Amino acid sequence: MADDAAPRRGPRGEAVTLAHGAGGRAMRDLIDGIFLAAFGNAGIAALEDQARLPLADFGGGGLAFTTDSFVIDPVFFPGGDIGRLAVCGTVNDLVVGGARPVALSCSVILEEGLPLADLRRIAASMAAAAAEAGCRIVTGDTKVVPRGAADRIFVNTAGIGSIPQGRELAATRIRPGDALIVNSTLGLHGAAVMAARGDLGLATALESDCRPLGALVEALLDAAPGTHAIRDATRGGVATVLNEFADAAGVCCRIDEDRLPLTEAVRGLSEILGLDPLYLANEGLFVAAVPEPEAEAALAVLRPLPGGAAACRIGTVTGAPAGRVVMTSFFGGERLVDMLEGDQLPRIC
Amino acid sequence: MADDAAPRRGPRGEAVTLAHGAGGRAMRDLIDGIFLAAFGNAGIAALEDQARLPLADFGGGGLAFTTDSFVIDPVFFPGGDIGRLAVCGTVNDLVVGGARPVALSCSVILEEGLPLADLRRIAASMAAAAAEAGCRIVTGDTKVVPRGAADRIFVNTAGIGSIPQGRELAATRIRPGDALIVNSTLGLHGAAVMAARGDLGLATALESDCRPLGALVEALLDAAPGTHAIRDATRGGVATVLNEFADAAGVCCRIDEDRLPLTEAVRGLSEILGLDPLYLANEGLFVAAVPEPEAEAALAVLRPLPGGAAACRIGTVTGAPAGRVVMTSFFGGERLVDMLEGDQLPRIC
Repeated sequence: MADDAAPRRGPRGEAVTLAHGAGGRAMRDLIDGIFLAAFGNAGIAALEDQARLPLADFGGGGLAFTTDSFVIDPVFFPGGDIGRLAVCGTVNDLVVGGARPVALSCSVILEEGLPLADLRRIAASMAAAAAEAGCRIVTGDTKVVPRGAADRIFVNTAGIGSIPQGRELAATRIRPGDALIVNSTLGLHGAAVMAARGDLGLATALESDCRPLGALVEALLDAAPGTHAIRDATRGGVATVLNEFADAAGVCCRIDEDRLPLTEAVRGLSEILGLDPLYLANEGLFVAAVPEPEAEAALAVLRPLPGGAAACRIGTVTGAPAGRVVMTSFFGGERLVDMLEGDQLPRIC
Repeated sequence: MADDAAPRRGPRGEAVTLAHGAGGRAMRDLIDGIFLAAFGNAGIAALEDQARLPLADFGGGGLAFTTDSFVIDPVFFPGGDIGRLAVCGTVNDLVVGGARPVALSCSVILEEGLPLADLRRIAASMAAAAAEAGCRIVTGDTKVVPRGAADRIFVNTAGIGSIPQGRELAATRIRPGDALIVNSTLGLHGAAVMAARGDLGLATALESDCRPLGALVEALLDAAPGTHAIRDATRGGVATVLNEFADAAGVCCRIDEDRLPLTEAVRGLSEILGLDPLYLANEGLFVAAVPEPEAEAALAVLRPLPGGAAACRIGTVTGAPAGRVVMTSFFGGERLVDMLEGDQLPRIC
């Protein structure tokens, strides 16, 4: 491409201006100097509005397609930032369906006045997370809105992945007898973001668990090829995923309160603020429904991997009451774990 | 899927609340009652976070992938709305690269308080535009931010398409001697949005040209299979596309001012406001670089089609000055047509 030879001009000034979104030279300089510089030229046809990918990248099993927008506040938080989150969130939606991420898009909505230094840091973070996840950012878009029409930066990523032949993961395939397992402790992302918000005045050691889950899912599927469904427990937390499982398959998800893995920090924050860690957001945690005979093998391969040390079984799928999630409490009683009805924490992702 | 049998619950109330973005039941009801109701269940696995597509949908030539976010103000404008725009914009990025749109994603960022009636209208408009363009909306995401953190609604669409074997459209392929043609009159979208903004106090008959361009592009490529490049002239207008062409191919794009097709309404508004229609945004206009021997055939197939009535040749590609766009004016003089340096109109798309 001709642009590979042309000198790359960075954006002028220290902050985003409306001109950076107007489609002209200032926008080109912003894209060249920040996004292409961070993401690398290799996969990006800078002067075309679309990326082209050979079908050979997709193997024979099919193509997965997903999207998420990210509006998290604060933009930078312990354990990550909106860029890392935007890559991990979309990558994880692909991998929990059994797909291998191939390519991502990156579309940003910027508020006039956003420091360019913040944008550079976010772009670098996206590039690093994409490399960690083994995929490329190949196409994008930039819009700028006047001050007050958005809050600093919103990021959308869409992702496409290849589904290896024969992989069939779906919540509808879950059956009574399946073991319910998680790879990590609950609520790290939600608790870290809540603690990071200035208005709480809490200083904690909490860090988001934001990470790409591909290596863990591939290991799980190797060790437990009969796995029925996997889902990452983001907004709405583990409680929401279990309700979706129960609803889709017409089964009951039964969990034990004393098996739920929690760090002391999350337990403490939840007690102080009266939150239920079952509903706290995660960005590096999945719930998997694994046939009983494969459950121990699944846990054994997860635990040595980064992000899998706390892998454990939290419960079992039964037939009734269909569509419900039931938790046995510390004290032996049972209670229904319903879907979240209201809003627990806006702008968590 | 189990959800096909379950009764569909719509969202409660009259306006978007933070609960609609929290990941729980309220969000599910919003998605079910508005987006799935509008887009149809057929292509959407409502309970999975990703869409799966057979590779057979993509033919043998390759896959195209693109994305755009839309922040237009006003959300509803003469000739369209943010939903129609979001579908047409992404579809058109695919088709001008020679791809046939297969599937779209739809991700919305909603401001707390947005009337649900507006959201229903936008979703219906997206569904209609996707049907018009011959593709499906297959996956999506919904975020809600508190009042003041965004302006009503932003929509991101990503799109994937199939590239028929042998199609090679790229600005780098443009050669001296190519005819430069457009399918439509210039500046309709930009002028209509500007006129629709309350602060101008103008009442005009202007309508945006927002439309999917697939049928026009397919006809063009049938009649002029040697076409080197096509690009839709959105933000930054025809001037920006011509500059991108000149820059990518190292050629000069020479146009004649008296050949530029303009409606009286656009000409009038531009004169009143001191705007140059070459820089006004379009949402249903492409510029194509077509080898001279095929130019007349291209125009002949475009003119009978919807959106092609004003198709005409606006100029010719020459060798020098390389990287420049030169316009011969009404009075016979020549002037350089540069890329837009500043911002002409924020939130035009």
